Amino acid sequence: MSKRSGEELHALVRELYPLCRSITGPGTRVTLDIIERYIPLQRTEVPTGQKVFDWEIPREWSIRDAWISDATGRRVVDFRAHNLHVVNYSSPVRARMSLDELRPHLYSLPDHPDWIPYRTSYYNDSWGFCLTDRQQQALQPGEYEVCIDSTLQPGSMTLADAVIPGNSTDEVVVYTHVCHPSLCNDNLTGIAVAALLARELAKTPRALTWRFVFAPTTIGSIAWLSVNEARTSRIRHGLVLASLGDAGGFVYKRSRRGNAPIDRIVEYALREEAGAQVEDFSPYGYDERQFNSPGFNLPVGRLTRTPNGRYPQYHTSADNLDFVSAQALGGSLQLCLRVASMVETNRTMLNLLPKCEPRLGPRNLFRNVGGRGPSQLEHAVLWVLNQSDGTRDLLDIAIRSGIPYEVIVQAASALSQTDLLRETKPVAS
Amino acid sequence: MSKRSGEELHALVRELYPLCRSITGPGTRVTLDIIERYIPLQRTEVPTGQKVFDWEIPREWSIRDAWISDATGRRVVDFRAHNLHVVNYSSPVRARMSLDELRPHLYSLPDHPDWIPYRTSYYNDSWGFCLTDRQQQALQPGEYEVCIDSTLQPGSMTLADAVIPGNSTDEVVVYTHVCHPSLCNDNLTGIAVAALLARELAKTPRALTWRFVFAPTTIGSIAWLSVNEARTSRIRHGLVLASLGDAGGFVYKRSRRGNAPIDRIVEYALREEAGAQVEDFSPYGYDERQFNSPGFNLPVGRLTRTPNGRYPQYHTSADNLDFVSAQALGGSLQLCLRVASMVETNRTMLNLLPKCEPRLGPRNLFRNVGGRGPSQLEHAVLWVLNQSDGTRDLLDIAIRSGIPYEVIVQAASALSQTDLLRETKPVAS
Amino acid sequence: MSKRSGEELHALVRELYPLCRSITGPGTRVTLDIIERYIPLQRTEVPTGQKVFDWEIPREWSIRDAWISDATGRRVVDFRAHNLHVVNYSSPVRARMSLDELRPHLYSLPDHPDWIPYRTSYYNDSWGFCLTDRQQQALQPGEYEVCIDSTLQPGSMTLADAVIPGNSTDEVVVYTHVCHPSLCNDNLTGIAVAALLARELAKTPRALTWRFVFAPTTIGSIAWLSVNEARTSRIRHGLVLASLGDAGGFVYKRSRRGNAPIDRIVEYALREEAGAQVEDFSPYGYDERQFNSPGFNLPVGRLTRTPNGRYPQYHTSADNLDFVSAQALGGSLQLCLRVASMVETNRTMLNLLPKCEPRLGPRNLFRNVGGRGPSQLEHAVLWVLNQSDGTRDLLDIAIRSGIPYEVIVQAASALSQTDLLRETKPVAS
Repeated sequence: MSKRSGEELHALVRELYPLCRSITGPGTRVTLDIIERYIPLQRTEVPTGQKVFDWEIPREWSIRDAWISDATGRRVVDFRAHNLHVVNYSSPVRARMSLDELRPHLYSLPDHPDWIPYRTSYYNDSWGFCLTDRQQQALQPGEYEVCIDSTLQPGSMTLADAVIPGNSTDEVVVYTHVCHPSLCNDNLTGIAVAALLARELAKTPRALTWRFVFAPTTIGSIAWLSVNEARTSRIRHGLVLASLGDAGGFVYKRSRRGNAPIDRIVEYALREEAGAQVEDFSPYGYDERQFNSPGFNLPVGRLTRTPNGRYPQYHTSADNLDFVSAQALGGSLQLCLRVASMVETNRTMLNLLPKCEPRLGPRNLFRNVGGRGPSQLEHAVLWVLNQSDGTRDLLDIAIRSGIPYEVIVQAASALSQTDLLRETKPVAS
Repeated sequence: MSKRSGEELHALVRELYPLCRSITGPGTRVTLDIIERYIPLQRTEVPTGQKVFDWEIPREWSIRDAWISDATGRRVVDFRAHNLHVVNYSSPVRARMSLDELRPHLYSLPDHPDWIPYRTSYYNDSWGFCLTDRQQQALQPGEYEVCIDSTLQPGSMTLADAVIPGNSTDEVVVYTHVCHPSLCNDNLTGIAVAALLARELAKTPRALTWRFVFAPTTIGSIAWLSVNEARTSRIRHGLVLASLGDAGGFVYKRSRRGNAPIDRIVEYALREEAGAQVEDFSPYGYDERQFNSPGFNLPVGRLTRTPNGRYPQYHTSADNLDFVSAQALGGSLQLCLRVASMVETNRTMLNLLPKCEPRLGPRNLFRNVGGRGPSQLEHAVLWVLNQSDGTRDLLDIAIRSGIPYEVIVQAASALSQTDLLRETKPVAS
Repeated sequence: MSKRSGEELHALVRELYPLCRSITGPGTRVTLDIIERYIPLQRTEVPTGQKVFDWEIPREWSIRDAWISDATGRRVVDFRAHNLHVVNYSSPVRARMSLDELRPHLYSLPDHPDWIPYRTSYYNDSWGFCLTDRQQQALQPGEYEVCIDSTLQPGSMTLADAVIPGNSTDEVVVYTHVCHPSLCNDNLTGIAVAALLARELAKTPRALTWRFVFAPTTIGSIAWLSVNEARTSRIRHGLVLASLGDAGGFVYKRSRRGNAPIDRIVEYALREEAGAQVEDFSPYGYDERQFNSPGFNLPVGRLTRTPNGRYPQYHTSADNLDFVSAQALGGSLQLCLRVASMVETNRTMLNLLPKCEPRLGPRNLFRNVGGRGPSQLEHAVLWVLNQSDGTRDLLDIAIRSGIPYEVIVQAASALSQTDLLRETKPVAS
């Protein structure tokens, strides 16, 4: 499945790539329309001006065209060639000016002369163009005409939730940001993996309720937490997904708590992934920052491959379709599926006959002729019984025993068919 | 003393070796008679059919003879040659059958063609023979006569306690299993060391009550805990002794708690033993499993040399008199005596003048002319005074100070003669 | 400043060197007079015979002259040559005796034949002389006259406090002992560093009240704690200063608590000091022993360079003016100033808008154009906001974030100018 899903993920990234997304506006809504082919979405439109904690929803931004033309009328910078050419959220402008007047509005990368940088200007009324340094160097003194055919007007910001109900109303939140224009790793890969993960999880009954949130970064998660504040007490695990298509190994960033079940689960799942790293929480990054602000302190970690800012292509036009691979995308989805499985199977069990070992043979949990050592599954049965006093979950037992988690789950499952073991309530997050 | 006691221990192992023990029956009772030459025993007969937690005491097994003879009447497998030849707890049988019919009842070890395996069949009504693989390979097709002259009938299982009363009714439990037939390391060595340890401890007054339990493994400790459940709250330390005669270094397995005083004491005592290892608790092994089941969770560790299952001779006829040595047995007893001494001397003391240092010179705890550094004992006096706030026992202070435990005990003893220090209640287990 | 203050410190050591100090008496009072040129002192005279916990203030000792003369009347040992020649606190004596009678009163160091040892005899009525081993070897049989012109009579022991008031009555105690005669590293260096540190701290307003105590060792701190017992609850941090002029690296000895703020602060400050070491508390050393006795258990660490007893010159005449350097003294004062600054700036802050990140741009805490990484100060702002839930102080945040402490303090200071952050009460000691 990995290879096939990798191709499907890459195809979705390709389809989403040309759209000019932002924190508001039509490009983002079209993106959500495409995601909805994989999983139904509940959209919340948060109107311009609404207070969300310390912030306010900005005006909605639409962009139709943008260019700089020289004295001959030739477009020397053209939004139609690449949507990174316009500073995201630029206010409209139509003017003639000299090169000297234009310069303060131009952004390029001298160290990477063929790449266009990605710049935003969400909360100040300004405009600008991004271009390759070669383009900037080639500009001759003279008069230029600039045009940004954009609109900034009252509207709304869209939050989109895909909810997969489970036996329990306790929730797992998967958050991925949808506000970046033509940038692949950050974050069309996160969108694609989240969409296919949701589709896959929706195929079979769920123990927990899964909530996938597709929304802008920062203001999006702030708005989501503001609108859904009453619901946050249900969140037992959370994961921010981003940058899942580059060639790097996985990097998991722990929640602020540092030892939440999601932290232990992902760390365990990454044991088998070459080059994987686990890092402590830090307050710089993606939307995990909001979930882990001290007033919420939710058990939300972040899974990426190479994190933001640690590769030169980050936030430039070089984060393109060649920078991400079907293989990396497929591997990312596989890992997410394994984590999802662990999140739902990891329980705290209670030994119902805790004084001395119970008889296992008559319950078909142990073979009969004594004198030789037990099998791994039989060892797992002994471990689950011995440790299930209500203080340790199955993952704890797997780690302490050194027996693979899946075997521990199998033992717990077999024991649950007898009078020996039952589940306590799920591990408190 | 070590050399002489080593020889005495090996002689006891030799005397016990020929007896055919099991979890019930006459062989085990004769074994207890021999132990009683070292220490008086209180025997408890638990009758067949009595419920002990999830288990039931089985019928009592007696074995008089067992053999397989070939068509010529020659005994090709003979219980009189080695009591491992019969599967322990075999039900009686007398029949003629072909080799093909006989095969499912035969057990041998292809990897060790000259060794007889040890097999048991306590809880299912069956019978069988163990033989060397060479014997099994030599069997020719034809008719055989099999005879197991055993009895399985209502009776009782014997638990034997040797109790050495102490100043306190708080107890130290030493448990060793007595159910294995002609197998030396596992566990005639445990029996011998426990018997001589008890005899030695009974010679002088005890601070704590010592209880040595000689009983079968698994069903024995389950029965003992069932019969003595009300007494378990008195158990402050416990040790399961087994496999103490092979050439390997000591292996201590911690209690489930992991940091009980017995764990810290044995770990400390093993610092000076070459090749010693300390392992975390696991729910597979000997009778520590029952004491450490979650409903009891008692501070009971296990001391062995090479543990069960980690040497090829384990549970075969090669675990014989040559496999165990007087030297190893003597060293094991020495270590147990040191642990016993630490168990009784390790206390939590209270500094009665805790504000600033008291004057030590006038109490003859410090020499007088200032200007040079104190002796190790004087350092120990300072450490005991400084740390004895009721939260740390003398072993904690030894570890924290780096001063040998015996010197710390000496300092505490000297301080206890003054108005500066008294014992609090013993460390809660 | 370091070089200049190093010279000033060494000059002060030179001035104090010739005085014959003891735990009582005029030499110590003159020492305090000199200290008072740097910082005003509040003196407490504790009278002879007063009970201080388990101890009693001894009689006051005055020494005018002491010598041994041979049959020719030549002074072969002379207090006027070196005040270590007399055993400190010797009772008066004037007698003629043979060399054999004299020997038990003589102390020398065979391993260091040119050094005079330092010996004291505070609490037993005796007398003695210290001399070089060469002097002792040269003594010929015959009659000697010995004279110790000392007085032991009712008087008092002097405790001297220099108090620098701060915004808070919470106190930082800096203790240094003033009872050693002509010994430089131990402890004229501690006296000199403390005096200049006090003078420096008194120049600017203080957040906390600083209390410098100049008093004898052991009986001095016991007396101080006895007299000031009611005040000890105000002590939030404490430091014993001693032996700060030798060529060795810094050694910090933790408080008995082991992780008090002062421990974390000094350990952090020492990260940048080559060859610095941090050690766990032990009950042998200087006056930290009394502050850390279990009945007080105050957060008082000890800062030295090479600690007592770890250099051969310790407590001998070789601990002289050549053994200590202006450079080492200057470095010691610098470190103390850095620690003092950290003690006052380390606070626990509270994020007042803890749900999601607040907007930093409008509060001038973050620059505006998005798309590139934040500065170190901006990272520090994020860390302070994220971690300031009332459980972590600024030093915790510096350590966790890896951002220099001073940058974290700067961020907290900037945030405190806004509506986002305020101080909680100081970290409880």
